[in-house]
Amino acid sequence: MRKDVPALVAGARNGEARSVARLISMVEDGDPRLREVAAALAPYAGRAQVVGLTGSPGVGKSTTTNELVRALRAEGHRVGVLAVDPSSPFTGGAILGDRIRMQEHTTDPGVYIRSMSSRGQLGGLAAATPQAVRVLEGAGCDVILVETVGVGQAEVEIATLADTTLVLLAPGMGDAIQAVKAGILEIADVFVVNKADRPGADATYRDIQGMLGLGERAPGDWRPQVVRATAVKGEGIGDVAAAIAKHRAWLSTGDRLRAAHERRAAVEVEAIALGTLRARLGNLHDGTGLGKLASQVAAGELDPYTAADTLVAELRP
Amino acid sequence: MRKDVPALVAGARNGEARSVARLISMVEDGDPRLREVAAALAPYAGRAQVVGLTGSPGVGKSTTTNELVRALRAEGHRVGVLAVDPSSPFTGGAILGDRIRMQEHTTDPGVYIRSMSSRGQLGGLAAATPQAVRVLEGAGCDVILVETVGVGQAEVEIATLADTTLVLLAPGMGDAIQAVKAGILEIADVFVVNKADRPGADATYRDIQGMLGLGERAPGDWRPQVVRATAVKGEGIGDVAAAIAKHRAWLSTGDRLRAAHERRAAVEVEAIALGTLRARLGNLHDGTGLGKLASQVAAGELDPYTAADTLVAELRP
Repeated sequence: MRKDVPALVAGARNGEARSVARLISMVEDGDPRLREVAAALAPYAGRAQVVGLTGSPGVGKSTTTNELVRALRAEGHRVGVLAVDPSSPFTGGAILGDRIRMQEHTTDPGVYIRSMSSRGQLGGLAAATPQAVRVLEGAGCDVILVETVGVGQAEVEIATLADTTLVLLAPGMGDAIQAVKAGILEIADVFVVNKADRPGADATYRDIQGMLGLGERAPGDWRPQVVRATAVKGEGIGDVAAAIAKHRAWLSTGDRLRAAHERRAAVEVEAIALGTLRARLGNLHDGTGLGKLASQVAAGELDPYTAADTLVAELRP
Repeated sequence: MRKDVPALVAGARNGEARSVARLISMVEDGDPRLREVAAALAPYAGRAQVVGLTGSPGVGKSTTTNELVRALRAEGHRVGVLAVDPSSPFTGGAILGDRIRMQEHTTDPGVYIRSMSSRGQLGGLAAATPQAVRVLEGAGCDVILVETVGVGQAEVEIATLADTTLVLLAPGMGDAIQAVKAGILEIADVFVVNKADRPGADATYRDIQGMLGLGERAPGDWRPQVVRATAVKGEGIGDVAAAIAKHRAWLSTGDRLRAAHERRAAVEVEAIALGTLRARLGNLHDGTGLGKLASQVAAGELDPYTAADTLVAELRP
């Protein structure tokens, strides 16, 4: 028997892993009942610290996440993990490989772990991830780790979605200049220099500290923390957890957390609205709309701005 | 005296570097006369082979681009280079560092090199890059290299914009599984295993070849090429240029190039249309629109889908 939305939300509230999994699947698949789910979950918004964790492929994100879950559980937190794969348009989802390492947590009822892709969801990752976060908040998680691969766009997205952004670096993966180039200096609340037992780790640590020293900060502003870890040996993870807790404490003073949540909600609402509009533009594909315009542009008969104006004009609210 | 658009376009057509630079600046800044520029450049669409070049930070993209420019010039091509920084929302543009290495080409009138960010442009990178490509096509470039950092979103974008997509890998930057994870196996027309003189290069080469062997291909489909190079020594660059030429030849048979250009134009037009719509949503920020909705969502009083519906309904075409 297929459970209806109120029953699934009640199940998630009671900590039933299957209801949580089902609701996140609905988010991921852009289920038509998503609006009903969102309405039912709305009251539980903003209850968790959302921790974004990002970095280049191979830097050790999954291992660090796994160890961090262990540390947070030891502190008594209820933990959610969303492993987000921004390349999903092509792969159709995350690869199983490094998810396997997290299996030690699968029997722990205080941990929910989920790989997710943004296929099907209006507004893509930017819309789907906050909805999945809401499911986990509804299920009582007070720390939610959102792990995402990549630099550039993906990190921009993670920074707008997370309360606290962790950026992982590793020696030999490119120096601090590369970090600046990728724009990560501006988004990180905590830097983790992982694989700290490898040659070059101290140089990476010093480079990041040096670059942070160059930035101007107003009194009371957060100073990004730089932490060394060797996640594969479990070393330094306590320091990472402590830096996360410190940022949580900083956020909790004054109006910061509310302001952060409003910013995040604005991004989320805008992403869903754009998703709706994109779907309407997409529907024009089937008619004479975009396809014909595109072939005129490709043939040099029409410029793309005029074509876009035509497309927007065809859009009826 | 500030030149008007027809004079700038005429200048670019005559190969004047300053006119080309000025037009790309207008694209980058979202200049109000952009529509006029686009209209003037429309007839020159689709004249160049657009070669996307992507890979993780530190893999050697700039060095490879630099060497590739030399090789393409030696073959008599007129070459444009766009170094695109998708992290520009934060950094406000590319870092100068590795652009400096390209200075050897600055006195060559057959080469245009430009770092660009997508600030200000409606539709972001997806809209700005094709416009800059059009400027370079107008200036007579027949090969345009678009270099972008990153995995995930950025690579997805580059693949939709380029006729030919090069993905750079390096040994020790993560294995082939990571390549699959990042979704790059599906988008690359040519793989370049750079830093081929380092340990592990043969293993990376074999891994990629092995994974390509697993994919199914219809007769006549392009089989991605895998090329070894050590760009910093100039080694293997001829092979990279040959793989690019081979892909160009493949594209030129049958209807492939026209189909690719129509796909690209559709993405471009849709991106500009979405940018227009996003700007209209953004204008609602100033009113009671998005800000109020976001604070209700953050407070748990409203779900984000209902908020998005309200926002879309406020949009007047």
